[in-house]
Amino acid sequence: MRTVTVLGATGSVGSAACAVLKEQSRHFRVGSVVAHRDAAGLARIARELNASFAVVADASAAQDLAIALSGTGIRTGGGPAAVLDAVEEPADIVVAGIAGAAGLAPTYAALKRGRHIALANKECLVCAGEAFMARARAVGATILPLDSEHNALFQALGDAPADSVEKMILTASGGPFRTWDAGRIAAATPADALNHPTWSMGAKISTDSASLMNKGLELIEAHHLFGLGADRLEAVVHPQSIVHGLVCFTDGSVAAGLAAPDMRVPTLHCLAWPDRLPSAGNRRLDLAAAGTLTFEAPDPERFPCLALARDALRAGGAAPTILNAANEVAVAAFLAKAIPFGDIPALVARTLEQMAGRHGTPAGVEEALVVDAAARAATRALLPPGPTAT
Amino acid sequence: MRTVTVLGATGSVGSAACAVLKEQSRHFRVGSVVAHRDAAGLARIARELNASFAVVADASAAQDLAIALSGTGIRTGGGPAAVLDAVEEPADIVVAGIAGAAGLAPTYAALKRGRHIALANKECLVCAGEAFMARARAVGATILPLDSEHNALFQALGDAPADSVEKMILTASGGPFRTWDAGRIAAATPADALNHPTWSMGAKISTDSASLMNKGLELIEAHHLFGLGADRLEAVVHPQSIVHGLVCFTDGSVAAGLAAPDMRVPTLHCLAWPDRLPSAGNRRLDLAAAGTLTFEAPDPERFPCLALARDALRAGGAAPTILNAANEVAVAAFLAKAIPFGDIPALVARTLEQMAGRHGTPAGVEEALVVDAAARAATRALLPPGPTAT
Repeated sequence: MRTVTVLGATGSVGSAACAVLKEQSRHFRVGSVVAHRDAAGLARIARELNASFAVVADASAAQDLAIALSGTGIRTGGGPAAVLDAVEEPADIVVAGIAGAAGLAPTYAALKRGRHIALANKECLVCAGEAFMARARAVGATILPLDSEHNALFQALGDAPADSVEKMILTASGGPFRTWDAGRIAAATPADALNHPTWSMGAKISTDSASLMNKGLELIEAHHLFGLGADRLEAVVHPQSIVHGLVCFTDGSVAAGLAAPDMRVPTLHCLAWPDRLPSAGNRRLDLAAAGTLTFEAPDPERFPCLALARDALRAGGAAPTILNAANEVAVAAFLAKAIPFGDIPALVARTLEQMAGRHGTPAGVEEALVVDAAARAATRALLPPGPTAT
Repeated sequence: MRTVTVLGATGSVGSAACAVLKEQSRHFRVGSVVAHRDAAGLARIARELNASFAVVADASAAQDLAIALSGTGIRTGGGPAAVLDAVEEPADIVVAGIAGAAGLAPTYAALKRGRHIALANKECLVCAGEAFMARARAVGATILPLDSEHNALFQALGDAPADSVEKMILTASGGPFRTWDAGRIAAATPADALNHPTWSMGAKISTDSASLMNKGLELIEAHHLFGLGADRLEAVVHPQSIVHGLVCFTDGSVAAGLAAPDMRVPTLHCLAWPDRLPSAGNRRLDLAAAGTLTFEAPDPERFPCLALARDALRAGGAAPTILNAANEVAVAAFLAKAIPFGDIPALVARTLEQMAGRHGTPAGVEEALVVDAAARAATRALLPPGPTAT
């Protein structure tokens, strides 16, 4: 019986985790569940999973949560300090499903306690990868990647030593602009970018998927998770999103991780690791029904964000942190119709140029957040005048 | 430094093994090399690999071999007893590349000495799988599958326990009749059957590939190698032959083994196992260059051999041994133009019916060969009168 804490319980990652924990209730006890501000949703989850502690990060929702759970015996709390209290509760593994910069501090705190992390938050490794991996090593915790691509790589790698790996390949759906020419991409609207062919996701990640910046950020995450340099990490466009990642070994063998598009599959893998648990509910892959899988090299001309991310990884130091912050501001400006799609890579590149050499590798979450704030300000200063939603 | 013995050194499996051993000469010492009767070819290989002992199974070629290797210090021999002497020489791993029934006795002898086996001979596991696996367990040897499909499954499985596997899938190219209708297949000629779309192979295995019997035999091998029943073993048609095998886990995760079509890749994997050795010479897979991978369920109506093999596996006992022998006779008759292609499954089915219940599971190679001979005679008796090349 393992105890699981779920950070971001009411989001999409949390929903998959809760579905898994309900199906596998014989194997897991649920400790803390944490959400942003959806008190009613969190209360429902806490009851269903019989959690011991429920916390909303937004203190203004704490009272609603307390009322919704009164008489259940489930303790409640609200605000950032309560989130850290939730992380302090005993747990064997923490699902890190809080999106964005807000996920850094609680995930870092959870790691400090030696808990294994089922990591869905992208920013932890992109913005402060060295610090997270160093802390994990220091406390003997394992960071288990929960997103499809890195989970596939983690499974395909198995116990193979790093020097047996020639390269790793992450697949990218290619997004809605895969077949568009450069001029049409440059003029794409937010409605175009949000029209993702295979996944229904939030506006930010859909836009990153359309620019391939999402895959660039994933290359950076893969670098930290698996210890490979930028030259041994590749992306290949695979619109069907059936093969999620491939490990190419030095003898020519290739191991691939595949799955139906169902977040419960990597979630259960992480929660059960290093064992596996059977699931009747998780979707199964039917290759014959899938029929055709295609693969193509990403086009660096039409999708410059991938190269920007790779260059930031090569540059090291704070460059990935800056890249991520600049991209967030640029994407928000694009979604607010303040800049055209084609300006996203240009803004990221200019921010990186301006800030080059100003910051070293963030030694922890606080340093990463300082760089993040500085980069956001630098990118904002590059935006055209007028109201922007950043 | 591991010592390797190569049985079948001048065949296609042996050629790949010799290429690997030449490239990896820092890691391997070559003990015995054994061939059927190509004395000149074997002498060249023995010199190139600096083998200690060279043997031809056909005693009439022994003198040519002795002359060709005189003055080199490489000992030579000829005939079946010398083959067993070659197997007795010290070795850590034996490449079992002798095709057909002739491979059974030397491979079984090699296993008795506790050597790991890099197994390319199909008949060992199809005809006497229980005996081979029991002996391997008894002496603590590992049977490492050298053919692409089972090697891919072996790699994809890793150290996962059998109860974490829901099913395994072997891919089949589909052969030259993949898109043909049943009537055209029934009337196919040997020239049609040998026109394989992706691999250049011998006449017997090309015909088995055209009928999908080859994949049926591989399902039987997989059963013995991995301990899964017939209901947990599937074949999927994948004409590009890039994905060789897939392991579907009970949590919905799927691990696949891929490689470029290069026998050196699984060969080096087996020889280096449980480590991996880097190779500059082994071909690399380029997924973007491959472009499109397709998958389709095999059609049981047009390709009844697959179901025959699966039924034989379910029936157990000597049924797989009988299936294999009947198929060999039927394929030889087809290649000699004595029967149409459509009669191959009919002859196999009738032989299995006639011999049902007559023989139990072969307890060793000798018993398997007795069943094999009886099944061949039974199938021959079913052939139309006239000269046949069996």
